[in-house]
Amino acid sequence: MKKISIFDTTLRDGTQGVGINFTLNDKIEIAHALDEAGIDYIEGGFPLASRREADFFKITAKEKFKNAKITAFGSTRKPGRKATEDENLLALINAESPSVVIVGKAWIQHITKVIKTTTLENMKMIEDSIKLLVREGREVIFDLEHFFDGYKEHPKQSLEILELATSAGASSLVLCDTNGGTLPNEVTKIISELPKERLAQIGVHFHNDTGCAVANSILSVEAGASHVQGTINGWGERCGNANLCTIIPNLAIKLDYDLTMSNKMNKLTHLSRYIADKANIIPEKNQPYVGTAAFGHKAGQHADVIVKAPHLMEHISGDKVGNERQILLSELAGKSTIIEKMNKFGDYTKESKEVIALFNTLKEKEGEGFEYESAEASFELLMLKALGRYRPLFELNNYHLETYKTWGVDSKTVGRIFLKSEGKEYMGAGVGVGPVGTLDAAIRDALTVYHPFLDEMTLSDYKVRVLNPENATKAKVRVFISSTDGEIDWETVGVSENIIEASWQALVDSMEFYYNTRKTK
Amino acid sequence: MKKISIFDTTLRDGTQGVGINFTLNDKIEIAHALDEAGIDYIEGGFPLASRREADFFKITAKEKFKNAKITAFGSTRKPGRKATEDENLLALINAESPSVVIVGKAWIQHITKVIKTTTLENMKMIEDSIKLLVREGREVIFDLEHFFDGYKEHPKQSLEILELATSAGASSLVLCDTNGGTLPNEVTKIISELPKERLAQIGVHFHNDTGCAVANSILSVEAGASHVQGTINGWGERCGNANLCTIIPNLAIKLDYDLTMSNKMNKLTHLSRYIADKANIIPEKNQPYVGTAAFGHKAGQHADVIVKAPHLMEHISGDKVGNERQILLSELAGKSTIIEKMNKFGDYTKESKEVIALFNTLKEKEGEGFEYESAEASFELLMLKALGRYRPLFELNNYHLETYKTWGVDSKTVGRIFLKSEGKEYMGAGVGVGPVGTLDAAIRDALTVYHPFLDEMTLSDYKVRVLNPENATKAKVRVFISSTDGEIDWETVGVSENIIEASWQALVDSMEFYYNTRKTK
Repeated sequence: MKKISIFDTTLRDGTQGVGINFTLNDKIEIAHALDEAGIDYIEGGFPLASRREADFFKITAKEKFKNAKITAFGSTRKPGRKATEDENLLALINAESPSVVIVGKAWIQHITKVIKTTTLENMKMIEDSIKLLVREGREVIFDLEHFFDGYKEHPKQSLEILELATSAGASSLVLCDTNGGTLPNEVTKIISELPKERLAQIGVHFHNDTGCAVANSILSVEAGASHVQGTINGWGERCGNANLCTIIPNLAIKLDYDLTMSNKMNKLTHLSRYIADKANIIPEKNQPYVGTAAFGHKAGQHADVIVKAPHLMEHISGDKVGNERQILLSELAGKSTIIEKMNKFGDYTKESKEVIALFNTLKEKEGEGFEYESAEASFELLMLKALGRYRPLFELNNYHLETYKTWGVDSKTVGRIFLKSEGKEYMGAGVGVGPVGTLDAAIRDALTVYHPFLDEMTLSDYKVRVLNPENATKAKVRVFISSTDGEIDWETVGVSENIIEASWQALVDSMEFYYNTRKTK
Repeated sequence: MKKISIFDTTLRDGTQGVGINFTLNDKIEIAHALDEAGIDYIEGGFPLASRREADFFKITAKEKFKNAKITAFGSTRKPGRKATEDENLLALINAESPSVVIVGKAWIQHITKVIKTTTLENMKMIEDSIKLLVREGREVIFDLEHFFDGYKEHPKQSLEILELATSAGASSLVLCDTNGGTLPNEVTKIISELPKERLAQIGVHFHNDTGCAVANSILSVEAGASHVQGTINGWGERCGNANLCTIIPNLAIKLDYDLTMSNKMNKLTHLSRYIADKANIIPEKNQPYVGTAAFGHKAGQHADVIVKAPHLMEHISGDKVGNERQILLSELAGKSTIIEKMNKFGDYTKESKEVIALFNTLKEKEGEGFEYESAEASFELLMLKALGRYRPLFELNNYHLETYKTWGVDSKTVGRIFLKSEGKEYMGAGVGVGPVGTLDAAIRDALTVYHPFLDEMTLSDYKVRVLNPENATKAKVRVFISSTDGEIDWETVGVSENIIEASWQALVDSMEFYYNTRKTK
């Protein structure tokens, strides 16, 4: 089957979704995760928009990517301006990414009513811009904004644009359904009509305003497209972009197309959840393929059919995409995972008392709101406890934090801590702008002399999520802390009604994980 | 265009979704809401399953429905049993609903491996069951379980089942994609091949495991089906059922089919949200047509196009489905958005000093990490300040919080606050499990006697995000707080290196927004 290029725009169009924000550091980490997973193109942002957007390209230009081409986004030159003097095209050139996307107008009404120019000048804008970027050695992907709406009104004009962009040197012509209103049969008809033999590779970019973005993408490939744009988890403005986490397995597993990701499909679920954690978004449980409920079955009469002949109850096996079958109200799923994780310490079975103990602890903790999918280090500590292999770093006697604020000045927090470590008592004091930094400083003040390894680690991220928001200030909060020693990263979790207590749990876990594992490594 | 029947299974298949539960009373109220909206069939439940399920039919049998037929769900008789003695068919007869759905096997492997009978006995089960119910005067809708998987394996057998059910008297033959794995082109091909002139009306029932349930439903209608099953908001097991809130406007508005709902489309958004409230589920913001973000636009350069020529930016107008356009604020927010928001207070232009002042404040705040897209109430306060219409609720002298923890006990926070309001000084004290609850309690302690409106509002959600996590405990955090008075909800934001300071800002904004706007309303 033909090769299909997958183009991810989570970092650009995805951030148009409500509540989707990434720091520069998030963006770089996400780009590497997408690359590892086998995505072909990663649209990193709009370098003209801000310093942070431009910095992404500066930094990634010096880094290695195995599969993906980092791609900068911009638009054709403005009307009545030379391409070589257009600040947006210059920003694209300065971005130094191996490929670039430029968006151009492909609906006459937008040309005449929105940017208020002529169709002739629009053609020149497209031609000049593509040619300039090709001369600069870039692979140019040309996004035809509002293509489907434009084609329905004036197919001849749309064809002329496609032919012009092809002859100017674009590598791909991406048909965009910018308003998201195009329905499946229209997509099939329009793409089937195009004289594809005379044109550069056809790509597609759908929005989900009629709930058909995934279907439209698949139908486009079956009608001749070979480049598909979308976002992880379908994030994007209004109703979202086409969801790559659904399109990719539809193409690779169900329709057998050749994708760079084809032999890495079991990383898909992790990719979806990892990027959701970076965005601090709880992923939709019912998302196809990668959602936690996607392979859920109510326990009961069909349970034995699922075990003996799963193809009768599931359209694919969840492990193909790195997901798991979930038998609701059943213990089967949990224990086998625990045994798998315990394997490095010896042979355990479902009847081992360590497995049962850890299983019960996990059930209890998960009932309280702990979640270990993004906090493996906290899980590891629970496992070490169940195995009798855990060594505490310290015991707390007490801590005391004070936060002051006076009019017009930001709050400050000071704190002191009393703790016992390896039989001795220590006191530490700290001052910081917030309670977590103050606690971190006070623990280090008390212990670093005796445990110099603390100097090797730092906190690298901190996230908070309310769990039962009906009653917010008394609701439980879940805190995730990421830590690093420069080589490895680890994540820990804490849950409490009190944000300081939840942070404290995750903070102590982060130190204890390092204390326990760096010596046994 | 042909008439399409809409069959809602929210109350039966929808409740297979994780977390979807209704009381008997909820079910009856929802049935009436569906009827008002113009749904043709309402599947109310499985009368054999429980007393509550059976009671639904007892009660609704005595009530009036203008448009909808209440429909009871069951299955064909068991193998080797007489239809007249099958408890499930008897329960359907006792339900006294004008129409009934019975599900039968339509995939040979399920016949031989799951219910372990012969294809011949399966045919008799179908025939006997339909005939009995027809004799009892019911309209019989026949659901063919796993139809698409069965057809792909053995089309001739599938056709025989369709013909048999037609001659036995079924009014509709519903092709079910029970495992949800069928893709759009397969659906079009299979339905196009069926000898529809010899068969009863064709219906379809899709699950969303490949993200194509909506598209498959639409394509089925275009290929000849005229009865569509689905659920409100797409609820259902695994990845959900086909979402009627998307299918209905696709058919009625975009493709112009004749639906009972056609002239009531502006009730759709209300219907979606009303049923979500009954289920105590927060509806997905990005749901096509009815989601709060479905007609959202980022403010900026396109704002004037949206006003002058909305068809260029929106595939339909949101008010057709009872939804609204939403102009979101973002980093790119331009002066035209500010002017639009200020319009309710008077005539302002890009040159007005109030517009320039607010524009500059926004740029500065956004540079510090504030984001107003999800915090319109904080934006509104900035606007009132720029307009000279802001009245402060209080001035802070100082606050002082203390947090203690001793070994084995969770942290507790106590605090006191000194503030001035309308010229007088007040002191308040609070105790809570965390700093935000404590500050909230202390402000209320100081002010509620003089500002009893504080009793009308509560915090309803709280979210925290670190902005530059390279250096986590000293990084900035952004806090969003949602508040409610039971009727309206509003969101506020705070940003600081200190989580307590950021929470404080959002908390004070939430109270000041209510103080300033509830009196001017």
